[in-house]
Amino acid sequence: MRATVLVRPKEGILDPQGEAVQSSLEKLGFAVGSIRVGRVIDIELSAEDHAFAREEVERMCSGLLANPLIESFEIRLDEA
Amino acid sequence: MRATVLVRPKEGILDPQGEAVQSSLEKLGFAVGSIRVGRVIDIELSAEDHAFAREEVERMCSGLLANPLIESFEIRLDEA
Repeated sequence: MRATVLVRPKEGILDPQGEAVQSSLEKLGFAVGSIRVGRVIDIELSAEDHAFAREEVERMCSGLLANPLIESFEIRLDEA
Repeated sequence: MRATVLVRPKEGILDPQGEAVQSSLEKLGFAVGSIRVGRVIDIELSAEDHAFAREEVERMCSGLLANPLIESFEIRLDEA
């Protein structure tokens, strides 16, 4: 099974990387509003069971992949 | 309209960040296989038209958001 985790800065948290991207895109002539930059993490899992896999990935997120003070995470599970 | 862009290291390209995450998760006792780390970029767009918005975001990706030599990108568009 494969898990895709999206880690994003929480609302209200400063995102200097997003601001830099926004200003660069504007300089290139694109009409964009707010931009936020986070991380995508693709994980190969040996777990077969959906519920167990989700629990494991949630534990990975709170333990290592995301900083819960300033980041939120979203987990997607794909078979195969 | 909001676009979500996922930028990932291409297959075969070294991903030291992914390797570091993998080894840390293993040390924490998680059974994981290969891990790849990329970026997620959320963009607020003023464009209303779906096809036009996708074209704009594709141009942003090849021009600034991704390095096409070593990274692939995936675009998702949401209304609202």
